[in-house]
Amino acid sequence: MGHTNGLSHRMASKTIKLVDEGGNPVVGKEVVLTQTNHKFLFGCGIFDAIDVANKNVPADRLAFQEQKLDLFLDVFNQATLPFYWAMFEPKKGKPRTKELKATAQWLKDRNIDVKGHPLCWHTLTAPWLLDMSNEEILKAQFARIERDVLDFKGLIDTWDVINEVVIMPIFDKYDNGITRISKVLGRVGIIKEMFAKTRECNPNATLLLNDFNTSINYEILIDGCLNAGIPIDAIGIQSHQHQGYWGREKLEEILDRFSHFGLPIHFTENTLTSGHLMPPEIVDLNDYQVADWPSTPEFEERQAKEVEEMYSILFKHPLVEAITTWSFSDDGAWLGAPAGFIRKDNSPKPSYKVLKKLIKEDWNTNVTCKTDDNGTLSFEGLLGDYELVCEDKKVSFKLDKDAETEQMLIL
Amino acid sequence: MGHTNGLSHRMASKTIKLVDEGGNPVVGKEVVLTQTNHKFLFGCGIFDAIDVANKNVPADRLAFQEQKLDLFLDVFNQATLPFYWAMFEPKKGKPRTKELKATAQWLKDRNIDVKGHPLCWHTLTAPWLLDMSNEEILKAQFARIERDVLDFKGLIDTWDVINEVVIMPIFDKYDNGITRISKVLGRVGIIKEMFAKTRECNPNATLLLNDFNTSINYEILIDGCLNAGIPIDAIGIQSHQHQGYWGREKLEEILDRFSHFGLPIHFTENTLTSGHLMPPEIVDLNDYQVADWPSTPEFEERQAKEVEEMYSILFKHPLVEAITTWSFSDDGAWLGAPAGFIRKDNSPKPSYKVLKKLIKEDWNTNVTCKTDDNGTLSFEGLLGDYELVCEDKKVSFKLDKDAETEQMLIL
Repeated sequence: MGHTNGLSHRMASKTIKLVDEGGNPVVGKEVVLTQTNHKFLFGCGIFDAIDVANKNVPADRLAFQEQKLDLFLDVFNQATLPFYWAMFEPKKGKPRTKELKATAQWLKDRNIDVKGHPLCWHTLTAPWLLDMSNEEILKAQFARIERDVLDFKGLIDTWDVINEVVIMPIFDKYDNGITRISKVLGRVGIIKEMFAKTRECNPNATLLLNDFNTSINYEILIDGCLNAGIPIDAIGIQSHQHQGYWGREKLEEILDRFSHFGLPIHFTENTLTSGHLMPPEIVDLNDYQVADWPSTPEFEERQAKEVEEMYSILFKHPLVEAITTWSFSDDGAWLGAPAGFIRKDNSPKPSYKVLKKLIKEDWNTNVTCKTDDNGTLSFEGLLGDYELVCEDKKVSFKLDKDAETEQMLIL
Repeated sequence: MGHTNGLSHRMASKTIKLVDEGGNPVVGKEVVLTQTNHKFLFGCGIFDAIDVANKNVPADRLAFQEQKLDLFLDVFNQATLPFYWAMFEPKKGKPRTKELKATAQWLKDRNIDVKGHPLCWHTLTAPWLLDMSNEEILKAQFARIERDVLDFKGLIDTWDVINEVVIMPIFDKYDNGITRISKVLGRVGIIKEMFAKTRECNPNATLLLNDFNTSINYEILIDGCLNAGIPIDAIGIQSHQHQGYWGREKLEEILDRFSHFGLPIHFTENTLTSGHLMPPEIVDLNDYQVADWPSTPEFEERQAKEVEEMYSILFKHPLVEAITTWSFSDDGAWLGAPAGFIRKDNSPKPSYKVLKKLIKEDWNTNVTCKTDDNGTLSFEGLLGDYELVCEDKKVSFKLDKDAETEQMLIL
């Protein structure tokens, strides 16, 4: 176990009484406790998992993607999969359910928690909504939620229910079905409808509201939603920092403001690049298009430092429960930015190594202790999954916030 | 009757059957119909009415104030009176109820609709709240609402319930009791509490939310309040334009955005000065302090043009139901600005004359017609109060939206 200063909110103590097959206490034995997973969600947008799970790319590309996924699985425990309506169901009635299901299952089998992103958004929504009346659009959106949330229940129990509502009704780059109905329902109204439908289909799911707007607008919107009784489980905050790292002060100011609600906070879409910064005058990040946006050694060092600081600040904050870096790899990254932890050739950047060290060493509990005369041992560790090894025997267990004395049979 | 283009939403048709004392139809007589008041509220902040109603200033000042009030009464039908807690109850338990009641009664006797401003605000709130716990502050705020709303029921049935909530919890110029509790309750939470208490005390009152913030922040706040079931009767929009007239485009854009809710809109605090403009870099208008801010002939012409355009745009908008100019006179105007319709010496500016012409001539119905063989006449007019004169007899009536054929006895 490494650095646990200021991490008491992520830790628990546990007393274990070890007994053998015969029910006798295991007395005076050395025991090694190893944390195998975090309760905290360290995630990435990892759309490449679709290729790997479905093996529907040429062999050399598949091998490359498999190598990429190995690097991902070595560090992370959460994945965000794309449910952009325009791509998920480009032709009405022909959703890519099978492909995405295979992917979610492939990730679940590897102990990865999967989130679906997003169920409702004005960007990348189904173009065929444009031919419909507002009533038909709303009906289609509900049907989409019902179908997909039910289809993926058990595989995906965390959803970005609705994305970027602050701008939704005033989004004017192009006409789209979702902006149309958001104008009629209003911001809180459309959130209420989408959350109600999603909750109805998966009552125990973790449901997020997600936005890139971190201003007072988003605060007031959340305040309104909560007062209107909308069951938001976690506040999703995007943090695409193509124009430069926010820095400690801004980050803590945002955390402070969004902590007032007492809800869990997920950093849902984080970007820190290892390239030159996007000019500050760009308002919509999508407007910045460059032929080449290289990752450079100098900027890779900067990225590593920023990743280390930002993840450390967030991990220390009691309400933050998840950090998702949006692009795991530079290969295929949004806007062509060098936003990944690994380069286009799958070689890990310094940021990958820094974060792996934080997650797997500094914040990972590994202790050796001895059972007493009653066969009991006590330890304190970061919340998550554990493996206990005693001589040639082992047992797995979970360390949760409310850990009590537990008797374990070791085989 | 003057200019009624685009004013159909402010008009109604009425058929009247005139009968004499004996119940006989008044046949073939010339009838003059004169509008004596508007349904639309044309108001001012007219705190000077306190002096006049209570006669508690020296004789020469009283005469000056009476002259001022005469000019006010000649044009307007609505008055806003101050209920700033710091001034209304500077010493806990000693509210200026008697003075304000006399004033409200004085105005009511002159057919003026009175609004109280405001019941809850972080600025000019009672300084003695600072010694209390948050629970005590909330209790005191409730008690204040209960006392004042009940005391003034029948005299004041329109209230700015809560003022400037967008900035309220992040207001950091100085510590105050209301900002403290707004941080705990949240924006929608404090609005909900204040509206519930006010509504409880005066179920039929017209209750306003009021703000100077006309950005998307205020829109989202209103959206949240309405979805939380808060019974807002009218949206209050401040429009202190010390830094320059908004102009038609901005005004129409704001009207457009705040019309989405379908609620009545009141322009609660309007300022258009007849002096130099406050520099654009000033963010909090209170920060601009000058020794002298003269009203000049050139700028008085500008003010008159702006008043004419702005009032015309607002009067034409179907959801606007009230316009209150914040300072009737330059004498005692907020920030010392030449913001009044009359100068410091009570002489009317061009803006006074322009507005009087709009309210009393252009938008005022005066028609002459003849009763038919059944004693009936039909006319169309602006909504409001009327006097009907036939020879030496007269009768008063109201022209409301749902006017039906009405039999009137003329004496």
